[in-house]
Amino acid sequence: MSAGLTVLKLGGSVITTKERALAPRLPTIKRLAKEISKANISPLILVHGGGSFGHPLAKRYKIKEGYRCKASQLLGFAETHEAMVSLDKLIVDALINEKIPAVAVSPSSFVMTKSGRIHSFPEEPLTKLLSMGFVPVLFGDAVFDLDRGFTILSGDQLITHLALRFKAERIIVGVDVDGLCTSNPKMNKEAKLLTHITLKELPTVLQQISEAKTTDVTGGMPSKVREIVPAVENGISVFLVNAAKPNRLYKALRKEPVKGTYIVKG
Amino acid sequence: MSAGLTVLKLGGSVITTKERALAPRLPTIKRLAKEISKANISPLILVHGGGSFGHPLAKRYKIKEGYRCKASQLLGFAETHEAMVSLDKLIVDALINEKIPAVAVSPSSFVMTKSGRIHSFPEEPLTKLLSMGFVPVLFGDAVFDLDRGFTILSGDQLITHLALRFKAERIIVGVDVDGLCTSNPKMNKEAKLLTHITLKELPTVLQQISEAKTTDVTGGMPSKVREIVPAVENGISVFLVNAAKPNRLYKALRKEPVKGTYIVKG
Repeated sequence: MSAGLTVLKLGGSVITTKERALAPRLPTIKRLAKEISKANISPLILVHGGGSFGHPLAKRYKIKEGYRCKASQLLGFAETHEAMVSLDKLIVDALINEKIPAVAVSPSSFVMTKSGRIHSFPEEPLTKLLSMGFVPVLFGDAVFDLDRGFTILSGDQLITHLALRFKAERIIVGVDVDGLCTSNPKMNKEAKLLTHITLKELPTVLQQISEAKTTDVTGGMPSKVREIVPAVENGISVFLVNAAKPNRLYKALRKEPVKGTYIVKG
Repeated sequence: MSAGLTVLKLGGSVITTKERALAPRLPTIKRLAKEISKANISPLILVHGGGSFGHPLAKRYKIKEGYRCKASQLLGFAETHEAMVSLDKLIVDALINEKIPAVAVSPSSFVMTKSGRIHSFPEEPLTKLLSMGFVPVLFGDAVFDLDRGFTILSGDQLITHLALRFKAERIIVGVDVDGLCTSNPKMNKEAKLLTHITLKELPTVLQQISEAKTTDVTGGMPSKVREIVPAVENGISVFLVNAAKPNRLYKALRKEPVKGTYIVKG
């Protein structure tokens, strides 16, 4: 299936279990690689979160807040990045195993941020990768920052930047809930799924959802969704789908009807 | 020990055994990490070769020669890069284990070549890394090429570029022989070590050394040494040392007397 560019995010909660450090969900990763392969989408950029590989370390060493001249933080940054490389390796290996020409593209090797926001982003390798039919795989990463020394660049900031820069048709965000609900479905069983939200409705919806109490250093569902707003404003459709449930991501990639939340401009 | 920048190359033959594919020399990697830690050199850039992780795959899929519109080559490129990431992970993990703040910097994520030569090389993250006291770890990699689609960027081309761009004081090349000899020491037991060579003497020496018959896609010792000539021409001293033998790399890093070959301008 060839069409406009799809930017696919796989949330850290989907591909790892956040209950303990460095714990991948290997069967899920394998299944998702199969679904992506079967969907046969091109061009495709994949971005994944850190889950229990990135967040506990980033939190322990206060990487997001920046460098405060403590030698232990340098080692902490090194450990955090290397943990993300380990997780990324599991994803890329699973994709290659399904015959997808996936190439790890390491954010800290080329992206610089300024006060936590993307500042420079040399695009040449990524442009080439996409034009040749590779699937670049990026990830939320510990990166270097002009003001802070270093910080955390979230996968959510990355997908929006990539979608805008490479003129994506759509963003698909694979999460571990069915989509955006009237309240946090992990805490409230009465929560109802919202299948279609416009930008105008979004602020009210986000206010209703209480922040998820997780170890996520990049801040729960509301902050994730807020990161994606600029893409929606530019006419890129965003679809949130439960990638923890079999076959949903496949259907979303194939544009088949499936439970989830569309966020559209209006 | 703080001084001018040291660019250290660890040859693929030192950190892997080339007798079979994907075979790291783990005790050697651990020992070298200890020697580097004990030497306590700063600033330091580390670059390693591919050995049995990079070369057999690169050769099988003809990655160096470029993309010839075969889908199998895309997967081959993906596999080659990912194998290098695996090897790099072993090195970086060993360094972090010795409390060195080592950060993997992935060449294919930011370097573009043109007909096999470095064409663009955004330096901002590396500059920041070095200024903060991190040890960047790069490697010979499968990279994207403006003319060929993709190719192999050797660790030797990388060290020269890095040494020139970041004004290194010296390059240390860790190999699995004692240095440059009057002939190939792996094939001729009469070979004598040359401890000191000037640029003027170099062409004659390289002619005497027959090409090593290995699976190295970047081409034996003579081609490695030729890559480094521009650095020597710019006054950067180059020292070849046997990193397969304990304590030699440590002594070289500490500038203590040790067996090896200096290549100097004149």
